[in-house]
Amino acid sequence: MLVRKKILLLASLLLLTFVGNPFGVFAQTTHHKAQTVAQVTVTNPMSSYSDIVSELVRHGLAEQQAYQALDELTGKIGGRLSGSPQAAKAVTWGKNLMKKLGFQNVRLQKVMVPHWVRGKVEKAWIVGGSKKKNIRLAMCALGGSIATPKRGITAEVIEVHSLAEAKALGPEAKGKIIFFNRPMDPTLVSTFAAYGGAVDQRAGGAVAAASVGGVGALVRSMTLAIDDVPHTGVMFYQDSVPKVPTAALSTIAANKLSKELKRNPHLRVHFELDCKTLPDVESANVIGELPGTEFPNEVVVMGGHLDSWDKGKGAHDDGAGVTQSIEALRLIKELGLKPKRTIRVVLFMNEENGSRGGEGYAAQLPANEIAVAAIESDAGGFDPRAFGVSADSLVFSKIRSWASLLQPTDICSIRRGGGGEDISFLQGKAAALIGLEPSNQRYFDYHHSDKDVLANVNPRELELGAVAMASLAYFIAEEGL
Amino acid sequence: MLVRKKILLLASLLLLTFVGNPFGVFAQTTHHKAQTVAQVTVTNPMSSYSDIVSELVRHGLAEQQAYQALDELTGKIGGRLSGSPQAAKAVTWGKNLMKKLGFQNVRLQKVMVPHWVRGKVEKAWIVGGSKKKNIRLAMCALGGSIATPKRGITAEVIEVHSLAEAKALGPEAKGKIIFFNRPMDPTLVSTFAAYGGAVDQRAGGAVAAASVGGVGALVRSMTLAIDDVPHTGVMFYQDSVPKVPTAALSTIAANKLSKELKRNPHLRVHFELDCKTLPDVESANVIGELPGTEFPNEVVVMGGHLDSWDKGKGAHDDGAGVTQSIEALRLIKELGLKPKRTIRVVLFMNEENGSRGGEGYAAQLPANEIAVAAIESDAGGFDPRAFGVSADSLVFSKIRSWASLLQPTDICSIRRGGGGEDISFLQGKAAALIGLEPSNQRYFDYHHSDKDVLANVNPRELELGAVAMASLAYFIAEEGL
Repeated sequence: MLVRKKILLLASLLLLTFVGNPFGVFAQTTHHKAQTVAQVTVTNPMSSYSDIVSELVRHGLAEQQAYQALDELTGKIGGRLSGSPQAAKAVTWGKNLMKKLGFQNVRLQKVMVPHWVRGKVEKAWIVGGSKKKNIRLAMCALGGSIATPKRGITAEVIEVHSLAEAKALGPEAKGKIIFFNRPMDPTLVSTFAAYGGAVDQRAGGAVAAASVGGVGALVRSMTLAIDDVPHTGVMFYQDSVPKVPTAALSTIAANKLSKELKRNPHLRVHFELDCKTLPDVESANVIGELPGTEFPNEVVVMGGHLDSWDKGKGAHDDGAGVTQSIEALRLIKELGLKPKRTIRVVLFMNEENGSRGGEGYAAQLPANEIAVAAIESDAGGFDPRAFGVSADSLVFSKIRSWASLLQPTDICSIRRGGGGEDISFLQGKAAALIGLEPSNQRYFDYHHSDKDVLANVNPRELELGAVAMASLAYFIAEEGL
Repeated sequence: MLVRKKILLLASLLLLTFVGNPFGVFAQTTHHKAQTVAQVTVTNPMSSYSDIVSELVRHGLAEQQAYQALDELTGKIGGRLSGSPQAAKAVTWGKNLMKKLGFQNVRLQKVMVPHWVRGKVEKAWIVGGSKKKNIRLAMCALGGSIATPKRGITAEVIEVHSLAEAKALGPEAKGKIIFFNRPMDPTLVSTFAAYGGAVDQRAGGAVAAASVGGVGALVRSMTLAIDDVPHTGVMFYQDSVPKVPTAALSTIAANKLSKELKRNPHLRVHFELDCKTLPDVESANVIGELPGTEFPNEVVVMGGHLDSWDKGKGAHDDGAGVTQSIEALRLIKELGLKPKRTIRVVLFMNEENGSRGGEGYAAQLPANEIAVAAIESDAGGFDPRAFGVSADSLVFSKIRSWASLLQPTDICSIRRGGGGEDISFLQGKAAALIGLEPSNQRYFDYHHSDKDVLANVNPRELELGAVAMASLAYFIAEEGL
């Protein structure tokens, strides 16, 4: 009885999800469109966009090939930092997979990328007193950092909470390690906003520290999780300021150091890094497409970035975006869809520490090619929620008019603003830059750390993102912007 | 440079999320608020609903006490099957927590509950041939099942894919184990719909098997994950049909058995269970509230169920709903809100195998009390997406008019249909039955299994659900329906 009641409830939920939902308004326009399409369609085998989305969902969830591809990429190759042998393997993997799936014009687009190497030494501890033991601090080098001297750096520590606070330090900073410990703001619902509000410390901590005579910078990891896993990420030097080594502390290590500093402001920390930057290396974007049947030189790009950090396996960042983009085009092909405009998958190289792939792609656009839109997935393989669209108002309205059609893919809104680092170079060229925006509460738990592995990706959530991208890319390729 | 671009992008995302989004109205008022609070306060200290939602979000995400409570409930008590000592401890825990938080009229509402005990023996294997070893099958008893004879049951197996198929079996079924192996449909986006489409096998498999002379029923676990963890859940007997023991196989075990049956249709399976049903036990719903300032006899209920299955720790199902309901009222109190109508938290007992708590609560409603609405959280502690509302059209429209106010809590739609098992007994009494609907892709990976533990709950996702419930309950308590 109870179960029967529950089943009835569930059945009604199901019905309501697909029929009686609050976006019913759109649903009507959907049917409209369905008719319009049905009359016009010659090349496309299905009668309406809503049917097409249903089929994309059905095939996607039944086959879940995004996850299979991500399993390969993370399992056989792993982390793939620009310039590394793994990144080179990932290029070959991407090309071979696209060929195997029957994508057309599969090709590599050469780019030169930075080649930073972590090395083998990453150690940090609070130096113990006469009777006390050293206290270990979980730490990893930030991408781009120079090494410490071989014997390491041992110095007193000044804790600050902003670049400005560091830059305002007086002579006391000289010879010290500057410790940037402003957490990501947990009260912001958007974890990307919280990241945006804290990441200047990671990017600019070394320069700020060195500008006042500091000998190194330690930065609280960019995560909302309190655990003992450090998170890497890119940092930058300025030519006018001496280079000092810089590393991330786990949030537990940062809390520990902060607490110990309150007891003893003169404690010393020792740290050692042997990372280094080698000469640039040749690498490539991987490109494949389904040529448009009517306007082949008008192109809708779907992409993510093929490189990742070397910590973890780059599963969410951005194996997800890579495998979703490939899966999206696979699904479109599998359904036998023949869109009017070209849909192209681009696996961008080097988003993490240089964006040479995104820059190179935009710079090498052929003169006769029209970049209609670009969709990037670089926010993790979580349950999709929204597309963020940077476009002129009329273009935005057109895209938003498809919101109800996308609802079966778990997309619940299309909002203004958004895009992605790699496609940002197409600004002014493409009519719309679009970012897939999945649920983001868990993203920074894993981001740039040993925890960014396949086990933290749900196959269905990943696949739904691919299906959403396939649907939107197809609409744009059919309708134009 | 690149990071600067990224930071700019993030900053603009931030701006757009909180200013330029369709609900941007609110964000600007946040800072304002702290000041306003002190000046305006009469009954409600804040100047607008959007300010209140912002403050609920801010306090919730800063304090994350839902997760702290869930840590206690799952860590100190664990699984809490109706009638068990753990369920009794959970009642005391709930009462004490509500008192500690200053809820009023904290009380227990007695209900008699079933008392099924799993026992210690749960074994199953495919019986090996003369040279072959036995093949172990991961399995657990379904809730309510009788035991096998002490020596177990050893019999041939017939695989079916529906109750109807089982009931249509001829004399061949006699003395056999009937194996129900229809998977949840992975192509449905709603995993609840997929569950609803398969769970009849678990609930009714034993009766269907026995009705054709079967000696036991083995059922494929209700999950979309392919792993070796069996998922329990309630099953039912009918007085007119002999009782046979029934258990769930992990999906890997089900696949294995199905494969082996194709090779050898006459293979035999052995299984042993020593579970049993004891006499009913006295237990209780736990109730606490914030009395309304104008209409105290008009009541908005927020609740989840305090009992859980004994596998795992009942973290998502439904420690989440319990701790979110308590946290929601705590936040309302903490902000000094004094709603016109009463907001009541009810921790329902025995949702899993009897729903005596939900039934008892509705049956014991005082004659002078008006049940305005009830909001249940029993779909896991994941990122909130929607409220599902079962109500008259005008009432529904009123609730939906608050959709934009709820957006800062990560709620992206209010849709028709929904509710919850415990509050379903208020149908015809309350003007609206409302279910919190979080992202559901991962729910059945954990549901009713050893995997339903705290480690699979994200504190922020859990908290946002609590904040969403607090917001909606407060609007209803202020505005009525």
